[in-house]
Amino acid sequence: MSSKPNLIAVAGATGAVGREILAILEARGVEASRIRALASAKSAGSFLAYAGSRVAVETLRADSFTGCDLALFATPSSISRCFAPEALAAGAAVVDNSSAFRHEPGVPLVIPEVNPQDLAHLEPGRRLVANPNCSTILLLVALEPLRKAFGVKRIDVATYQAVSGAGAAGIDELVAQTRESLAGVELPPKVFHEPCAFNVFSHNSGIDLGSGLNGEETKIIRETQRIWNDSEVEICPTCVRVPAIRAHAEAVTVTLKRPASEEQVRAAFNGAAGVRLVDDRAANAFPTSRKATGLDDVLVGRLRRDPSQSGSSTLGTRFCLFISGDQIRKGAALNAIQIADLLETRRGNGGTPARSARASA
Amino acid sequence: MSSKPNLIAVAGATGAVGREILAILEARGVEASRIRALASAKSAGSFLAYAGSRVAVETLRADSFTGCDLALFATPSSISRCFAPEALAAGAAVVDNSSAFRHEPGVPLVIPEVNPQDLAHLEPGRRLVANPNCSTILLLVALEPLRKAFGVKRIDVATYQAVSGAGAAGIDELVAQTRESLAGVELPPKVFHEPCAFNVFSHNSGIDLGSGLNGEETKIIRETQRIWNDSEVEICPTCVRVPAIRAHAEAVTVTLKRPASEEQVRAAFNGAAGVRLVDDRAANAFPTSRKATGLDDVLVGRLRRDPSQSGSSTLGTRFCLFISGDQIRKGAALNAIQIADLLETRRGNGGTPARSARASA
Repeated sequence: MSSKPNLIAVAGATGAVGREILAILEARGVEASRIRALASAKSAGSFLAYAGSRVAVETLRADSFTGCDLALFATPSSISRCFAPEALAAGAAVVDNSSAFRHEPGVPLVIPEVNPQDLAHLEPGRRLVANPNCSTILLLVALEPLRKAFGVKRIDVATYQAVSGAGAAGIDELVAQTRESLAGVELPPKVFHEPCAFNVFSHNSGIDLGSGLNGEETKIIRETQRIWNDSEVEICPTCVRVPAIRAHAEAVTVTLKRPASEEQVRAAFNGAAGVRLVDDRAANAFPTSRKATGLDDVLVGRLRRDPSQSGSSTLGTRFCLFISGDQIRKGAALNAIQIADLLETRRGNGGTPARSARASA
Repeated sequence: MSSKPNLIAVAGATGAVGREILAILEARGVEASRIRALASAKSAGSFLAYAGSRVAVETLRADSFTGCDLALFATPSSISRCFAPEALAAGAAVVDNSSAFRHEPGVPLVIPEVNPQDLAHLEPGRRLVANPNCSTILLLVALEPLRKAFGVKRIDVATYQAVSGAGAAGIDELVAQTRESLAGVELPPKVFHEPCAFNVFSHNSGIDLGSGLNGEETKIIRETQRIWNDSEVEICPTCVRVPAIRAHAEAVTVTLKRPASEEQVRAAFNGAAGVRLVDDRAANAFPTSRKATGLDDVLVGRLRRDPSQSGSSTLGTRFCLFISGDQIRKGAALNAIQIADLLETRRGNGGTPARSARASA
């Protein structure tokens, strides 16, 4: 790929995740001439600022991918389902952010820090990889050091999810509603089913009438089991929206397979990929949505033993964490680009267009 | 008491909880002439609107309680510790909202829906009752129907706490910071240790350096064990602030002592005191901070089995709930007044001044 023009298609380029993908490519030094920004017809003809210049937005069509080596999809499932096959047919590697292919055999579901080896299960001749749900990515990046060191038997997690999970429209709704609410006016919700200004509400995804789980909770359970290749791990999630802009937080209690001391658990995070400990008890300084905004790393803090674990032993199996990560960045755009990096490395030329460009920048 | 002038002192009358106490007394038809509004010297001489008229704010002093039958304290612990003994010495019954007396022998810690019988442990001649922490009240009111029916072995809870937990100053800070943030300016935090506008952060109470628990989490554990008179119940809390104004929410997983079906758990809430089920899966309508604002009841929804409970049995011991309640109202002011109601009933004249007034209104 590196000897070719390395055309990169970004489908859904005008959305929150699409724009973040462009921002990361720009920061890596990828030239505007190598970007093909694709969106719905209503955005076609507009331009997106890029590296001091701009890229033209073209209508996403079946023939949009001619000459592309890589297609990054930041589109709804229905659009991904329709156009990802076209990109594959044109010879591009595809990383899809939607849930369209996440459980399809031969389509790896990958977090580079967690299960890069699953790319070996790619269906021959079909380089399609699925990007997991944002809450799942942040959770599993944070837990990977503990899974490696002690094994994980169970996860209890309550999420504090930013409105950006509903894209740019979600952010716009929060900002507009908050502005009006401060002026004494209540705007009716459109993107969400509840007002989001100064409110906390159960996640807006649909509820399974039988289990009572919402779609986000189901994703966390199914995706974790697939990514960990572990159908036995117990997961009990509650997914909730809060009026934060773009970073999610999660309160996690993890049950380890093998007992550990708090010091051992803390030490497991030393040098771990993609996570950063922010855990200063004396200063009451821990991960927050704002601190995580714009960062590549998932912040991990409030590390402590489950206080209900009795006895004098310093070893325990249950530990609590509070984590926060930028759901548009590591929860979506960055993870997709990291997958593309891995695909490129697997092809044997030692670097993606993006990484090559960054190295030479 | 009902044959006397029934003077009611409200200490800390100008704060968020103090004002809510006045609002409840006003709604119950208590005349302004029966209110003695007490606050720090800097508020003295001001007036609070009350029942179409107003009440004068007086400086809280040792002799403020002469002639009072009841003193409701909505003051910091240090102030309660200083002045509650004066109110008791003046012959008043005292209900204190602070944490000053919550673990003192002879001072019952009471949620009327949960442990009214504990008023029998009042130290003779010292009618002092402590009001629990707001998060504890909301949690235990919601769980009481399940504790009664099935017993509770364990509680895992993650809170979504409104800024009003830090009083009127907390609300003012959220509003001011949000307004400035929308204008592109970031005000430095004063009341909290982190910015609160569009942010999620670990609770602002101090952290125990050994256990890693913050003060709010410790309160939930210790107060629950005292209120339930159950030192065995396991509690694993994570307390977090969110940019909501005045109602807290909590994601709860409860482990019952005796297995139950989801239908049995749901049925347990029928007619339960102080709780209201808001649990419409088809409409995605569940408790939210906004819905709970201004209500007496704690809203309970997202009732479902822990999805990790495997097997074909319809019975399980682990269930999830999402609850929300007005922390200024049921979490503080209303609970205190309900305790006063119980104290009055125990004296044998069948009604508090407030309730008598309401009955005749």
